[in-house]
Amino acid sequence: MFSKDKNIQRLLETAHGLSDISSASAVLAWDQEVYMPIKGGPARAKQMATMAGMFHNNLINLQIPNVKSKNIYDLALVREMKKLKAKATKIPEKLIKEISEAASLAQQSWQLAKQKKNFGLFATSLEKILKLKIQAAKLLKTKHQSIYDAMLDEFEPGLTEKQVDYVFLALKPKLIKLAKKLKFLTLNADKNIVNKKYDLITQCKFGLKIASAMGYDQEAGRLDTSAHPFTITFSNCDVRITTWKNKKDIRPSLFAIIHESGHALYEQGVDPRLDRLQIGEGGGLGGGIGMAMHESQSRLWENIIGRSEWFWQKYFSSLKSQFPNLKKISLKQFIKAINVVKPSLVRVEADEVTYGLHIMIRYEIEKDLVAGKTKVRDLPKIWNAKYKEYLGMTPKNDAKGVLQDIHWSHGAFGYFPTYLLGTLISAQLWKKMPKTTDLRVLREWLRKNIHQFGRIYTTDELLKKITGETLNPKYFLEYLEQKFQRLYR
Amino acid sequence: MFSKDKNIQRLLETAHGLSDISSASAVLAWDQEVYMPIKGGPARAKQMATMAGMFHNNLINLQIPNVKSKNIYDLALVREMKKLKAKATKIPEKLIKEISEAASLAQQSWQLAKQKKNFGLFATSLEKILKLKIQAAKLLKTKHQSIYDAMLDEFEPGLTEKQVDYVFLALKPKLIKLAKKLKFLTLNADKNIVNKKYDLITQCKFGLKIASAMGYDQEAGRLDTSAHPFTITFSNCDVRITTWKNKKDIRPSLFAIIHESGHALYEQGVDPRLDRLQIGEGGGLGGGIGMAMHESQSRLWENIIGRSEWFWQKYFSSLKSQFPNLKKISLKQFIKAINVVKPSLVRVEADEVTYGLHIMIRYEIEKDLVAGKTKVRDLPKIWNAKYKEYLGMTPKNDAKGVLQDIHWSHGAFGYFPTYLLGTLISAQLWKKMPKTTDLRVLREWLRKNIHQFGRIYTTDELLKKITGETLNPKYFLEYLEQKFQRLYR
Repeated sequence: MFSKDKNIQRLLETAHGLSDISSASAVLAWDQEVYMPIKGGPARAKQMATMAGMFHNNLINLQIPNVKSKNIYDLALVREMKKLKAKATKIPEKLIKEISEAASLAQQSWQLAKQKKNFGLFATSLEKILKLKIQAAKLLKTKHQSIYDAMLDEFEPGLTEKQVDYVFLALKPKLIKLAKKLKFLTLNADKNIVNKKYDLITQCKFGLKIASAMGYDQEAGRLDTSAHPFTITFSNCDVRITTWKNKKDIRPSLFAIIHESGHALYEQGVDPRLDRLQIGEGGGLGGGIGMAMHESQSRLWENIIGRSEWFWQKYFSSLKSQFPNLKKISLKQFIKAINVVKPSLVRVEADEVTYGLHIMIRYEIEKDLVAGKTKVRDLPKIWNAKYKEYLGMTPKNDAKGVLQDIHWSHGAFGYFPTYLLGTLISAQLWKKMPKTTDLRVLREWLRKNIHQFGRIYTTDELLKKITGETLNPKYFLEYLEQKFQRLYR
Repeated sequence: MFSKDKNIQRLLETAHGLSDISSASAVLAWDQEVYMPIKGGPARAKQMATMAGMFHNNLINLQIPNVKSKNIYDLALVREMKKLKAKATKIPEKLIKEISEAASLAQQSWQLAKQKKNFGLFATSLEKILKLKIQAAKLLKTKHQSIYDAMLDEFEPGLTEKQVDYVFLALKPKLIKLAKKLKFLTLNADKNIVNKKYDLITQCKFGLKIASAMGYDQEAGRLDTSAHPFTITFSNCDVRITTWKNKKDIRPSLFAIIHESGHALYEQGVDPRLDRLQIGEGGGLGGGIGMAMHESQSRLWENIIGRSEWFWQKYFSSLKSQFPNLKKISLKQFIKAINVVKPSLVRVEADEVTYGLHIMIRYEIEKDLVAGKTKVRDLPKIWNAKYKEYLGMTPKNDAKGVLQDIHWSHGAFGYFPTYLLGTLISAQLWKKMPKTTDLRVLREWLRKNIHQFGRIYTTDELLKKITGETLNPKYFLEYLEQKFQRLYR
């Protein structure tokens, strides 16, 4: 861990303070999405902006010592603090505050627009946050980065458009082909479980039971409901998750909880000595390396583990006992129902095969938005056309279409690709994980090999350390082939 | 409202930023008491401390212009900002942060101690926060103030021990005499309604109905439950209240909600142009003048209005319809039950007559604590002896005794007297209020005469403006005499 070097200790102290400000802002964000009364919005946006401004100011005035240490923790601390400062220095405080306020307000109007199923109510806010984020990315980008690259870098350090293109282009035809093949095999396999009634409170209770089994410490977290599921960290010992409500289908909330618990295990699993070092959105040394590695954790639990037969051999009887509507469903039927492969409209509820296509649609659209090739007002039209092209479906309304995800309202352009990259990583990791059905052993492996390190290593370093190579999509394709062959042999 | 003077506008902008920091800290405090998972405590204390430190730093560096304005808003702004800065300048940042962290941790150990009914679990934290608050008060106090005066000043600007003594000493024998007289008249008048079952969710729903009737805007607030009821403001448009749970008695939660709604009406009723000017705990121009005036509002609604016959003529049938256990209770019985005068152990549930004695006990104890005449470890013994002396009762355990109130855990020494002063003010105001049973008219009168002004005027100025005199306890005694005479004639 960190050396006793005076300079390092001083830097640590400052970093802790910065982390406290970030965490306080995170509490405001959590509250805004979970409990804030509707009229509290404008003042909250101002509070967020003031906090963002102070955080920014503190970063700019940060003194970073020259450290001659060989301690990897010391080096990583200096590296990450330098990076945070360098980025902050490029952006004026005014813009930081504008972005913060606009994001807070846009998130509120997104919520309303989604409720009212009317993209028009969101368009102006989205235009504003997009414009501001482009402005920031232009200031942030290096010579070799595109504007969109600078955005990707916010979520997965160093990631570029070229890299994403390279991976996605190769993957696209294979996913489309596989989806077509599987569509007929799995047709209607879920008809027995959808459009029933599932008590919402029981759903949450059962979800928490699964989360606990995964190792999510509920004394160091909590579950609430929100317009869009998310995980948020205030400290290693306060990592909260949310889910959404669906009375008619058991799957959306359940898999959202498993997904978010996957994120939460990462955050709870970081070495406690790296706590109070999660700084800004994905900065510092606490928390996960980047969103690709983070999503690898959530997607691993949600899909590779959470949609496996062995997993439900453990929990299906308990699930069944909670929900009368599942009484006549067999384990086999349930496994097929949670693994139906079919084109659908909602990303978060998509199967493992078509999920990538949902991501590609968003990736293509947001690149065009950022490049100015697409206008915000045209988004619903473009969205619907892409869904028609890739998935053969058109949403009935914007709530099930372009308004489904919260990300753009936050100004989180460049986030979506990490979901698919994370999914690819999850299969690559899975290959190396112990062959066991003991969740504690699996969780412990992840903690030891990934979680504990926070941001000490880069994604590439850690991947190489664990799997001997950097990102390789072949494991995911192999995993899919094998899984569905076994399921439908 | 404020002039367009450039200096004033600049000061306003800074004040808004300070208010945002305060509000953000308030969100952290709210979350800590309402939703934070148990292990999140230590990190939260650090976050609170960092926030307090930043707030303090910003205050110290505040530039206050010389303004030659006759505008009362301008003058009040300069006056309040000067006061905030002057106080901050007296205390080193280190102490501010220590107090903040210690208060956050003490509040957590108070909660645990109360749950476990064991004062010992709280004693060390209380010693620490007491020591730190005395240290701060010594730095804050002026030549003419005692240490305790400096503490009183935090809650009711300018209030002194001498003033409180003067009022309380005259009041004490009268309250004791009245309590004795009424005790026999009202004996067992509540036996029909206690120790029944009252559904908790229905209690909250009904409480909110009453709160709405009072004018509490739920789109600009929300109700949650916590270990001790409180009201907290993040902006005029986000004023939240909490209540506590009691399955066996309908009164504690109901009157807590009415009490807190009384506070909330004050906060929601401040002129919106004074919003984002509530700074620190009871500083700036937003929010109420001081806690005495604030408690006058809560106590007015809770007691003078909320325990009156005319009030329940409106709502009793609705209450009855919600709770089967009240089916056989008549309005008259109910009114007597909510106006039983008898010695009891819990302040918040005390009747209007003995309430003052509960306050006097706390006042005497905290003065001695601050003066070093009493040791924290001896508190349970001293507490119980005072209860025996004043009310003829001894608590079964510390949870019903010295641990019942949250205030000391926050370091809020000097707060308690404001409850009784507020109660006295409430009767003085009531005398001048329109003789109507229309709650909207009553609320509007309060808004126009008190709420809207925030901290523009002092308590004395406002009292004189409205009633023609400063605090006069005779109205409260008159009110009590008349009320109970009418009830038990």
